[in-house]
Amino acid sequence: MFKECLENLRNQTPLIHCMTNYVTVNDVANALLAIGGSPIMSDDEGEVEEITSICNGLDLNIGTLNQRTIASMLKAGKKASSLGHPVLLDPVGAGASTLRTKTAVSILENVKVSVIRGNVSELKALALGSTTTQGVDASSLDAVTDDNLEKMIKIFKDYAKKTKAIIAVTGAIDVVTDGEKCFVIRNGVKEMSRITGTGCMLSGIMPAFLYANLDHPLEACAAAVCAMGLAGEIGKSHLRDYEGNASLRTHIIDALMVMSSEELEKGAKYEIY
Amino acid sequence: MFKECLENLRNQTPLIHCMTNYVTVNDVANALLAIGGSPIMSDDEGEVEEITSICNGLDLNIGTLNQRTIASMLKAGKKASSLGHPVLLDPVGAGASTLRTKTAVSILENVKVSVIRGNVSELKALALGSTTTQGVDASSLDAVTDDNLEKMIKIFKDYAKKTKAIIAVTGAIDVVTDGEKCFVIRNGVKEMSRITGTGCMLSGIMPAFLYANLDHPLEACAAAVCAMGLAGEIGKSHLRDYEGNASLRTHIIDALMVMSSEELEKGAKYEIY
Amino acid sequence: MFKECLENLRNQTPLIHCMTNYVTVNDVANALLAIGGSPIMSDDEGEVEEITSICNGLDLNIGTLNQRTIASMLKAGKKASSLGHPVLLDPVGAGASTLRTKTAVSILENVKVSVIRGNVSELKALALGSTTTQGVDASSLDAVTDDNLEKMIKIFKDYAKKTKAIIAVTGAIDVVTDGEKCFVIRNGVKEMSRITGTGCMLSGIMPAFLYANLDHPLEACAAAVCAMGLAGEIGKSHLRDYEGNASLRTHIIDALMVMSSEELEKGAKYEIY
Repeated sequence: MFKECLENLRNQTPLIHCMTNYVTVNDVANALLAIGGSPIMSDDEGEVEEITSICNGLDLNIGTLNQRTIASMLKAGKKASSLGHPVLLDPVGAGASTLRTKTAVSILENVKVSVIRGNVSELKALALGSTTTQGVDASSLDAVTDDNLEKMIKIFKDYAKKTKAIIAVTGAIDVVTDGEKCFVIRNGVKEMSRITGTGCMLSGIMPAFLYANLDHPLEACAAAVCAMGLAGEIGKSHLRDYEGNASLRTHIIDALMVMSSEELEKGAKYEIY
Repeated sequence: MFKECLENLRNQTPLIHCMTNYVTVNDVANALLAIGGSPIMSDDEGEVEEITSICNGLDLNIGTLNQRTIASMLKAGKKASSLGHPVLLDPVGAGASTLRTKTAVSILENVKVSVIRGNVSELKALALGSTTTQGVDASSLDAVTDDNLEKMIKIFKDYAKKTKAIIAVTGAIDVVTDGEKCFVIRNGVKEMSRITGTGCMLSGIMPAFLYANLDHPLEACAAAVCAMGLAGEIGKSHLRDYEGNASLRTHIIDALMVMSSEELEKGAKYEIY
Repeated sequence: MFKECLENLRNQTPLIHCMTNYVTVNDVANALLAIGGSPIMSDDEGEVEEITSICNGLDLNIGTLNQRTIASMLKAGKKASSLGHPVLLDPVGAGASTLRTKTAVSILENVKVSVIRGNVSELKALALGSTTTQGVDASSLDAVTDDNLEKMIKIFKDYAKKTKAIIAVTGAIDVVTDGEKCFVIRNGVKEMSRITGTGCMLSGIMPAFLYANLDHPLEACAAAVCAMGLAGEIGKSHLRDYEGNASLRTHIIDALMVMSSEELEKGAKYEIY
């Protein structure tokens, strides 16, 4: 299944309009190129509708939002909705500021979002109105664990039904659900949390997986999550003892490129609930 | 010839004012430092004239243009023109949106541009008004090939005459012409198209080559193109089997630094038309 | 002493609000994660007060300042001051444009700045009103040398007293002083000047050192400077003969992560004046 998802992506080279933060934007572009897609970054109100029209999907990441880009994101999001393009929302820091929470909610109200991808704190902030977010990283109080797994699955299945979007919550254990079916994914390594941008990269490649697998959106999103996690595992395996997070970042993007679809199929670690 | 071009650059450490996109700006800065120049990034209307005045050249890259930076680019461009500084225009995505095409045209109308560097789709969009641009990468329909080489040279020689700028079109085969003489360059590796920013890096170092070789501007631009392509070849030679585009990017910037002027002279692959 | 400074940082994982330039922002984020802190980037006026309130320190870097972000920096800086958070000012390019000098001065007038970190040209521009700054790199005319060391220490001690901030001047020889005591630091390698962002990274990690060592602010800043320089030495030791500045950058961030507190204590090279 995941094998075909990746092959479909690579056969189609989806062009993804990325409206993403300036911290990790370069990694997002290289991750998209690595996995087999193609990125275009554009955030001026005067062109975002035209740009998104020639693309195959849209990534809305509010990591360094501002008044200008919020307006542009809404405009692009509405256009992409009207064209039936897959739209991803990455609500970076939702719960950490009123502006971020409000912007995420406003996008959800105005745009047909296909998938919301974030960490546990961000998704809980949106789903439950909880406010434990610590900056842009998940609060240590929040985590999907084997102990609370069933409860977490319920929360995010409910939120998927409410939003009619796929919910992809990433952390040590990832949860990807469309409200009915739920993938619980255990790929990845803990060192990924010491690199900025692994979440943003995943948000960049996910619309490419979605576009290339429109008839299996949930599996497409789960495949993207497994691919990112597996890239982390492969990347870590190449680390020398004197290497740290900067080298791991490089190895991870490399792994997205070198990874075969068979490796993804074989390396994916998940259960279905 | 190219040997002297690179030596002149390294002897003068040109300071280049880069008004470039936020996707690849870090790579542009490191590429300039690697080759032997020095970068300064500045895009506020309140200082761009002053900043460009203390610099030796200007790089105008519209990759993530917005209303604020368009105004700043025009202001800086006019100032640099009045001071006789080399000015490069990188019309990223010209043809992909009306705003990009219009901005490129507006810069060409208001600024004395020394060189326009882009991919085939972007340059065709400007030279012919064609609209085959796909995002920020060259359309697969567009390519300089051995079959259409003479036709392409004619198009870009004509456009060089019309704009009084050097035209540098990069792709599998590169074409660099001032309207009279034309370098056809065959350095580089195809894997470079899977890295974001190799074009932007070239646009960053080209004004440094120009400033250091003001009496041979065409050769200076051709030397920059050969250096970038040769860096790609050297970079690829250092790739391990598990490495992909992220490592290649690192190797390429490294190669710009380690490359000797003799290596550039010897490794440059070109014909003159 | 420096051993404890680093251990305190790693035990507390300080969350640092970074308002920094878009050129090196990714490296700043990864450097902070590497050393043991946590970054959040945010620059919209509508949220900076809220964001800085949940953080432990603030990094104000004017490397790519604009009217919008200047206003945001002042707002965040005032809020952080009122909360007693450590605030760092990195006056990138002060002296190179009126806007940069004025903005640095305005921040110093409106914000309780804990530490000003810059190169010799920038600090001389602020302390003496001299205007030898060449772009964003120190002018070759400016350098702290063994010949002018006493004079330089006097200048920066006086400026520390005047501003009531710690002054951290980095270059081949670093000077860190609170007006009374002065660390003269000789860590680092000359190749660091060929990488963009080593100064910005240091400015990103310094507030984390400060927050974790509030009772020894001068030692905290000196520890940060030694850590960055030592990371450069370690990074250089891993360079292969074909590697240049891009690899060195990666090795340096890696070294910030892998470095033990004992290594920092042992590797720090300084005298106290």
